[in-house]
Amino acid sequence: MLTKCTGYSDLRQTTAKQVYPRRLFSPDIPEQMDHARRLRSLRRQMKQRGIDSLLVTHLPDVRYLCGFTGSNAYLAITANRAAMFTDGRYTAQARQETSAAKVVIAAKSARDEACQWLVASGLEHCAFDPGSTTVTELALYRKASSPGHRGFFRPLTESLVPHLRLIKDQDELRLMKEAAHLGVDLFHELLPHLQPGVPETTVAAQLEHSARLRGAEAMSFESIVASGKRSALPHGRATSQRLPRKGFLTLDFGVILNGYCSDMTRTVFLGQPTRRERFTYDAVREAQQAAVAAVKPGVSCGEVDEAARSVLRKAGLAGYFTHSTGHGVGLEIHEAPRIAADQSQSLLPGMVITIEPGVYIADHFGVRIEDMVAVTQDGGQVLTPASTGWTQL
Amino acid sequence: MLTKCTGYSDLRQTTAKQVYPRRLFSPDIPEQMDHARRLRSLRRQMKQRGIDSLLVTHLPDVRYLCGFTGSNAYLAITANRAAMFTDGRYTAQARQETSAAKVVIAAKSARDEACQWLVASGLEHCAFDPGSTTVTELALYRKASSPGHRGFFRPLTESLVPHLRLIKDQDELRLMKEAAHLGVDLFHELLPHLQPGVPETTVAAQLEHSARLRGAEAMSFESIVASGKRSALPHGRATSQRLPRKGFLTLDFGVILNGYCSDMTRTVFLGQPTRRERFTYDAVREAQQAAVAAVKPGVSCGEVDEAARSVLRKAGLAGYFTHSTGHGVGLEIHEAPRIAADQSQSLLPGMVITIEPGVYIADHFGVRIEDMVAVTQDGGQVLTPASTGWTQL
Repeated sequence: MLTKCTGYSDLRQTTAKQVYPRRLFSPDIPEQMDHARRLRSLRRQMKQRGIDSLLVTHLPDVRYLCGFTGSNAYLAITANRAAMFTDGRYTAQARQETSAAKVVIAAKSARDEACQWLVASGLEHCAFDPGSTTVTELALYRKASSPGHRGFFRPLTESLVPHLRLIKDQDELRLMKEAAHLGVDLFHELLPHLQPGVPETTVAAQLEHSARLRGAEAMSFESIVASGKRSALPHGRATSQRLPRKGFLTLDFGVILNGYCSDMTRTVFLGQPTRRERFTYDAVREAQQAAVAAVKPGVSCGEVDEAARSVLRKAGLAGYFTHSTGHGVGLEIHEAPRIAADQSQSLLPGMVITIEPGVYIADHFGVRIEDMVAVTQDGGQVLTPASTGWTQL
Repeated sequence: MLTKCTGYSDLRQTTAKQVYPRRLFSPDIPEQMDHARRLRSLRRQMKQRGIDSLLVTHLPDVRYLCGFTGSNAYLAITANRAAMFTDGRYTAQARQETSAAKVVIAAKSARDEACQWLVASGLEHCAFDPGSTTVTELALYRKASSPGHRGFFRPLTESLVPHLRLIKDQDELRLMKEAAHLGVDLFHELLPHLQPGVPETTVAAQLEHSARLRGAEAMSFESIVASGKRSALPHGRATSQRLPRKGFLTLDFGVILNGYCSDMTRTVFLGQPTRRERFTYDAVREAQQAAVAAVKPGVSCGEVDEAARSVLRKAGLAGYFTHSTGHGVGLEIHEAPRIAADQSQSLLPGMVITIEPGVYIADHFGVRIEDMVAVTQDGGQVLTPASTGWTQL
């Protein structure tokens, strides 16, 4: 895999005027997102906060705002102009993918040219996201914009683009449903193949192969396939361990389809369970259903977490539920909001979150059940409609 | 996929005394790395630079130094102590994977507890890597360590852990050879399946499926499968386009095996080439061979880049070589050094780099050939020994 060039800028090929067939890069994106509308929303937020200009560098934020999916991007935004700076590896791709912003192929450094463009705009300040800017990057911004502009770059005091991304628009909801449904289909296809003796890695390989053949760009994280005692590991990646004759099997996986992540978990049982195993499964299922039922605009993330946790507390299992109840999902697998005990953020229509309580009894077994849920006007819609009922193989 | 918990620390289960079978997480790692030796090297560097203590947060750096592979880690290092802070999702995994550092499962925030542990050490300062620390993270370090310790955290002025990782030790070289050889095997297995009419995504799916079945944890980047005119795209991800009857096909892919990345590119031809196509391939191959031959301790990265570029310049193709010649590779797909025109860094024995010149004639075709090369005592060893000769299918 290659890295960008520096130097030899004079030799760089020019493809600005060449016309490429559409969808050369992302054949699966059925249509362009409305980037102009997203930029308008962002500019309204900027204006309300007195922000002259903004430098966006977090790649999912860049993709969200202008469509570009390359690995080197500096998106500079003022009240009436926007320019996306990248390098020569992406000449054709950037021009094809990017809308609502001018594409600039930097001769040397996309970062430096973006900073200089912003300084030359004559505006007083430029904001940046301190949560996605390293200390080194900031020093380089300041170096590129000096002399006389030391204070030009200022950290945002509140989240701006991630805040917009919190509420999915109609285009995004459609794509997220497609990603989630693909996940459900893959799970159903996989069920007949879950037999004692099959290595966990073979299960993962089969799942991921089907995902790829059905259009997924990639998995959204390393698939969790944890069987037998390994089901007690919340993050039990697939290993060479073979599925047991008797015991739980936790499958936690997601696809990336058209850029959007899916995420779901199902725990099935091979063989005949003990009463304790069945009791634990039913308690986790009840906790998961309670949290899904609690999803509604205006309810806080902490309340949704508590809905799951209180069920497990009554069952005497809360001490084994060692993580939070869920998280936002979208272009990234982990986004705002966090569905955790200390979160006062209220749910709003258009958010997409996971609900995934689990119980892990170390060295014995574990159970987790996870759905993706979209917050609607009056409740929540489960996007991953595979049964959560007890499944015995 | 789940996120860490905050709150409910009182309910957290304790598994410190439970014994887990070894290799529960990473069944494919044949043996432990010598983390104690790496920490000793780091401490020597710290001492030479007058650095009391160091906070390491970049996950590949954490893995390199102590073996932990979880997604939340703060590794605090002083002259005689080391502690790795994570959260309750990783209780069992951290204790099993980590060596050379004490494991601390944070009740609430791994970051805050690491900062407090460092401040409580009574040392004057703690260094951090500004290249992998966001502006927000730094503010949180300072908040966690106040009052009275505002200046405690100081940015490193030169690279420390990435500098150590530049030179691969024997354990790493062995694992990198295994990863590279797996890549070569996969390429050879794939060749008979490269037929006109097969979609690029099917090629990628097959490659990735074989990789997974043969033990890879994942691919090291989204596979590039670019056929026909799309071979002119340096980053042409696999699309639904079908392989043509006539034209180039560029395959650029890598696996992650035991944590280490491989990276290789081969460009093959379907059907009968034109003289121009054949001429371009031969020029790229000659450029690639010249750069591989230039690899030797003491030679600068810029000289290696020039070795490839000068061949293409003589062929009149340098204007179509729009990226740098290569990059370091290891636990991450892109590491130091950069093999680019402006890089004065000298090659040293133990470095592993890619050599990957390419020529891209927009809207027509492109060719890239890439090997991984380990710098030895007196030259370079190609780790990806698949033929780079003209391959016509």
